[in-house]
Amino acid sequence: MSLIEDLNWRHAVKAFDPTKKASQENIDKIIEAARLAPTSSGLQPFKLIVVTNQELKDKLAAGALNPDCMRECSHVIIFAAWNRYTAERIDGVYDFTTDVRELPRGRFESYTDKLKDIYLKEPAEINFAHTARQTYIALGLAMAQAAELKVDTCPVEGFDNKVVDNVLELEKYGLKSVSLMYAGVSDPQRDWIAPMKKVRIPTKDFVIELN
Amino acid sequence: MSLIEDLNWRHAVKAFDPTKKASQENIDKIIEAARLAPTSSGLQPFKLIVVTNQELKDKLAAGALNPDCMRECSHVIIFAAWNRYTAERIDGVYDFTTDVRELPRGRFESYTDKLKDIYLKEPAEINFAHTARQTYIALGLAMAQAAELKVDTCPVEGFDNKVVDNVLELEKYGLKSVSLMYAGVSDPQRDWIAPMKKVRIPTKDFVIELN
Repeated sequence: MSLIEDLNWRHAVKAFDPTKKASQENIDKIIEAARLAPTSSGLQPFKLIVVTNQELKDKLAAGALNPDCMRECSHVIIFAAWNRYTAERIDGVYDFTTDVRELPRGRFESYTDKLKDIYLKEPAEINFAHTARQTYIALGLAMAQAAELKVDTCPVEGFDNKVVDNVLELEKYGLKSVSLMYAGVSDPQRDWIAPMKKVRIPTKDFVIELN
Repeated sequence: MSLIEDLNWRHAVKAFDPTKKASQENIDKIIEAARLAPTSSGLQPFKLIVVTNQELKDKLAAGALNPDCMRECSHVIIFAAWNRYTAERIDGVYDFTTDVRELPRGRFESYTDKLKDIYLKEPAEINFAHTARQTYIALGLAMAQAAELKVDTCPVEGFDNKVVDNVLELEKYGLKSVSLMYAGVSDPQRDWIAPMKKVRIPTKDFVIELN
């Protein structure tokens, strides 16, 4: 199947069957697609937290607009972005990059100096606005990968970030939650949106062509 | 090829061959993947502007960090988000949705009332922070689609938004630029990053598993 067919196949699942699970092999591929996401300056300023523990899911449900999905999906994947840029984080990425490419460390110093000059003088919330945006690239690719594998998912932005951050103790990693993805197996009896037509803005209203 | 193979194939192209073009058929598929992107509450709060006109690309190059790419790629795709939510925009999407699904208009009124209650009291810049995030889902899927088709692209965040907004007169559409994608055919002589190894954070450092 092509990506377009996969994207037409998927929908935001409204109810999961608590007796069924996405396979770990498929979850690993979803994580891999997110890991391969391009990001600004290649910094990948986020991590994925994958929760299968039922007790933890029940605690997270306190912050969910649809707590049944949180409890009943097999995997909750939290996209959590760096709470701010630091020199250590930027250097960590670029030291790793030069090592992998067998280049001398510092090869990209003029570039990382420029990044530090921009980011380190910004307040943390401006940094986070930028790191948070990057997570959406990965979220999109994770959903596309899930669709390719016919794993049912629901992307979620509407939740209480404080509850999620506290339950997962994200502060200790220097992270803040941005979005979630529920993954598992849809319950066709309760997934009310499944039979409905997918709706998207018509192409003519979505694109402005300047030739 | 699988999505993961496609994502491993792609890289952020640093120089395009000005004598070669991506095909319109492929650009249409890239737009279609972006159009199918899931977005918060299904609002799709953005448009894509596709520029092939050389004079316009030359004008846009004044706001580019890499003006040669802007001038030499065959298609510049600008991801531009709603400058703010309005009742008219929200109702427009949901009226269309009910029409397509052959439901009575107003079927989702309690939901759209909730959206309006949240968004319309926020200042425009908070709205835009949210609409801008959604564009990144589409940007990721557009790049994945390009990779599936072996179209060379470079995603770009670093540019002068004011120049782009002014040249494209985005204000008249109620839009503001967020990101760009250059598409075309790489020039292997000048695309210095092409032979380099792709670098991503190792999976063990990217994922926290809570089982």
